Amino acid sequence: MLDSRIVRILQETVGKENVSTEQADRICYSYDATQQRFLPDVVVHPGSPREVSLIMKMANAEKIPVFPRGAGSGFTGGSLPTKGGIVLVMTRLDRILRIDEENLIAEVEPGLVTEQFQLAVEKVGLFYPPDPASLKFSTMGGNVAECAGGPRCVKYGVTKDYILGLEIVTPQGDIIRTGGETMKGVVGYDLTKLMVGSEGTLGIITKIIVKLIPLPEAKKTMLVQFDSIDGAAQAVSSIIRGKIIPTTLEFMDATTIDCVRKATSLDLPESTRAVLIIEVDGDQDLINRQAKRILEIIAPLGVISTQVAETQAESEALWQVRRSVSASLRKVNPDKFNEDICVPRSKVPDMIRAIEGISAKHAVPIVNFGHAGDGNIHVNVMVDLKTPGEHDRAHRAIEEIFAETLKLGGTMSGEHGIGITKAPYIPMELDPIAVTYMKTIKRALDPNNILNPGKVFLEDQ
Amino acid sequence: MLDSRIVRILQETVGKENVSTEQADRICYSYDATQQRFLPDVVVHPGSPREVSLIMKMANAEKIPVFPRGAGSGFTGGSLPTKGGIVLVMTRLDRILRIDEENLIAEVEPGLVTEQFQLAVEKVGLFYPPDPASLKFSTMGGNVAECAGGPRCVKYGVTKDYILGLEIVTPQGDIIRTGGETMKGVVGYDLTKLMVGSEGTLGIITKIIVKLIPLPEAKKTMLVQFDSIDGAAQAVSSIIRGKIIPTTLEFMDATTIDCVRKATSLDLPESTRAVLIIEVDGDQDLINRQAKRILEIIAPLGVISTQVAETQAESEALWQVRRSVSASLRKVNPDKFNEDICVPRSKVPDMIRAIEGISAKHAVPIVNFGHAGDGNIHVNVMVDLKTPGEHDRAHRAIEEIFAETLKLGGTMSGEHGIGITKAPYIPMELDPIAVTYMKTIKRALDPNNILNPGKVFLEDQ
Repeated sequence: MLDSRIVRILQETVGKENVSTEQADRICYSYDATQQRFLPDVVVHPGSPREVSLIMKMANAEKIPVFPRGAGSGFTGGSLPTKGGIVLVMTRLDRILRIDEENLIAEVEPGLVTEQFQLAVEKVGLFYPPDPASLKFSTMGGNVAECAGGPRCVKYGVTKDYILGLEIVTPQGDIIRTGGETMKGVVGYDLTKLMVGSEGTLGIITKIIVKLIPLPEAKKTMLVQFDSIDGAAQAVSSIIRGKIIPTTLEFMDATTIDCVRKATSLDLPESTRAVLIIEVDGDQDLINRQAKRILEIIAPLGVISTQVAETQAESEALWQVRRSVSASLRKVNPDKFNEDICVPRSKVPDMIRAIEGISAKHAVPIVNFGHAGDGNIHVNVMVDLKTPGEHDRAHRAIEEIFAETLKLGGTMSGEHGIGITKAPYIPMELDPIAVTYMKTIKRALDPNNILNPGKVFLEDQ
Repeated sequence: MLDSRIVRILQETVGKENVSTEQADRICYSYDATQQRFLPDVVVHPGSPREVSLIMKMANAEKIPVFPRGAGSGFTGGSLPTKGGIVLVMTRLDRILRIDEENLIAEVEPGLVTEQFQLAVEKVGLFYPPDPASLKFSTMGGNVAECAGGPRCVKYGVTKDYILGLEIVTPQGDIIRTGGETMKGVVGYDLTKLMVGSEGTLGIITKIIVKLIPLPEAKKTMLVQFDSIDGAAQAVSSIIRGKIIPTTLEFMDATTIDCVRKATSLDLPESTRAVLIIEVDGDQDLINRQAKRILEIIAPLGVISTQVAETQAESEALWQVRRSVSASLRKVNPDKFNEDICVPRSKVPDMIRAIEGISAKHAVPIVNFGHAGDGNIHVNVMVDLKTPGEHDRAHRAIEEIFAETLKLGGTMSGEHGIGITKAPYIPMELDPIAVTYMKTIKRALDPNNILNPGKVFLEDQ
């Protein structure tokens, strides 16, 4: 437990009402979307960058670990207070500071919920594309820290592609600005892109300058049922080879379809072994032509049926099939390990086949869906953790999945990050010298290792 | 001069024919596009990453500075061998290793000339958008080291947006891979984006994995003459507010137009005070509609005349006006200082007005042209260095231009980098703590300060 003197300093810094050492509050901030829990010593809700700075100066001097946190919706434990200390909850800093329609930029605070931001910019005809599944509750700061992705990244890129500048508080408590407001800028090293995706280990984000683009005029959603996963995968490759980059190319495998069959009013016959949700957006006339061309391209690839949404409501109904996946998975098994491997998109069929083999070998059901357009597959290893041995079998399967991913030129995480759950596997993917390079940067910028320690890299690696 | 033992080791590493200490060769590699010259001790042309690695291990052990170099076309001295030592010329490594049409990526070596790469990918219907003015001779490695831009960045972004992964040789001589081949990837810190734009100070690029996009079906070029710079600037803002992002929005001010008037067959009357070259690309039908809409939007803004290219040859003729600028400037004065400030695009008129004031105050002609679409203005301070006092007056003007740029929320370099020419001005733009953060990274990764020392940051800053 923390010294009462430290708690008093925190109270003086942010106000008594924004500091809690109550067991109930500490439990609330002990977990994220993983199955793991770690109790912090104290929960602090700062109200300004200056308060964050004062907290970091004190924490650095006293060598108290600090764990910054947005909505705690991460899948890899990036925000978990693994060593007690201070959880710094950034959600009070949730304002949109400005939307500059002339320069297509916005400035926001880290605690802002991503969907709130998207709705605000869409009101003025602008667009912030990154769309992680958590967007209704996850925060911009968390999205930046993890470099969140989502279905629309096929066409529009990831969070990193939209971050022009940051205000960050360093582990030593200094407030610095990185990047700026211009579309181009090459003055000094790119600290902005180094911070994006560094999982809160190099600095605490207190302001974000975001690049926006014009909101596409229209979109068109299609749901296509295939008689094989190979047909669906071939469809993805053929569309891209046809020089069309759709907004989304989401796929679901046969096990996923079995799970959602009862959760949707859509007719999903047993013969359907894969589904693609294809969306195009942009100029109305152009997307009509693109949609027609896509259907021509994929026609010979084992298409069982095609639904084309003509209205926004119909589009929502098609997306509902995809959105019902996560909740439906519990029909397979009560617990899951959710990995988000990414392979070159042409390797998706090889990867799915390999996963099927690994699933059979270890006798663990594995459900695959996700962003086929950029090769980013959400691999859900379904287990019942109450059954002895399930945990270990699942982990042996995951390790084999990662090995196969890397063999195919992929990466073990497309958008969820490393946090603690994937840290043990880092040596499988990264050259030891590259890891040394990264740890050298961490040590140089956070010599006391107080900011989100133990994340990304295992401490003994 | 280097010890003959060192030269012998270099000869054994890369072959005698690839090492030179001849005065003539050393002079060839003593300069770039700035006016400055520094003689290296030895010029080395490595033929493989392994050779680069061996050279760096030796140089690091012997504390000999190493200056990597592509075509030496930089505007800020980034490749100049300011401390003698070894110039490492990367141009023998000039292969396209593969173009993967299914995954829209390519892997290339750093010495490959950018235009050669663009032509190769365009042959298979793909597109690498970054287009620095030097693309006919500058190299992919140099473009990555400086994060090159160009006219098309308004729509397509800069070099950094297209680099997925790198092979680099570290200052200690280790060969490491950063990033990868997938569109998404969040495993560890983003060393790739840290390297892009770090001006050869953190590692030597030996391989580059590039993201490609489908080649746009068609393009349409328009040259519009305006009766005022404000009209042209307003046109840029109005087009973007109209939710159209053209491929290019290049502008020339009145002085630029005076320079090119005799170099082109195009009728440029005296009343023309600004020119915009607007290009749109994509679906043929869509760009026809966009071009029509653009002309409607800008019609009330003082348009004197509009040329619309209907053929590729006509488009080339319009671009010829822009391409003739650099050579034409010598009519104003024999020498120039070429800066590439970047401001939020809505601030371009304010910036131009400020520059006009600074030009009058210091009695130095200043010619402005460049990428209005992203606020990136090429400011050419024209001088005759043989005239006493011109150099100092020019530098006082430049310092005031930078101060005004920063006041308007801009940056002193959009695409040319810092090198040595802008290093003295870094403290004007960057927070001292941000500079410390950057220098900490440099020191951590290159403790002996042997890789391109003295660039980006002044050593006593």
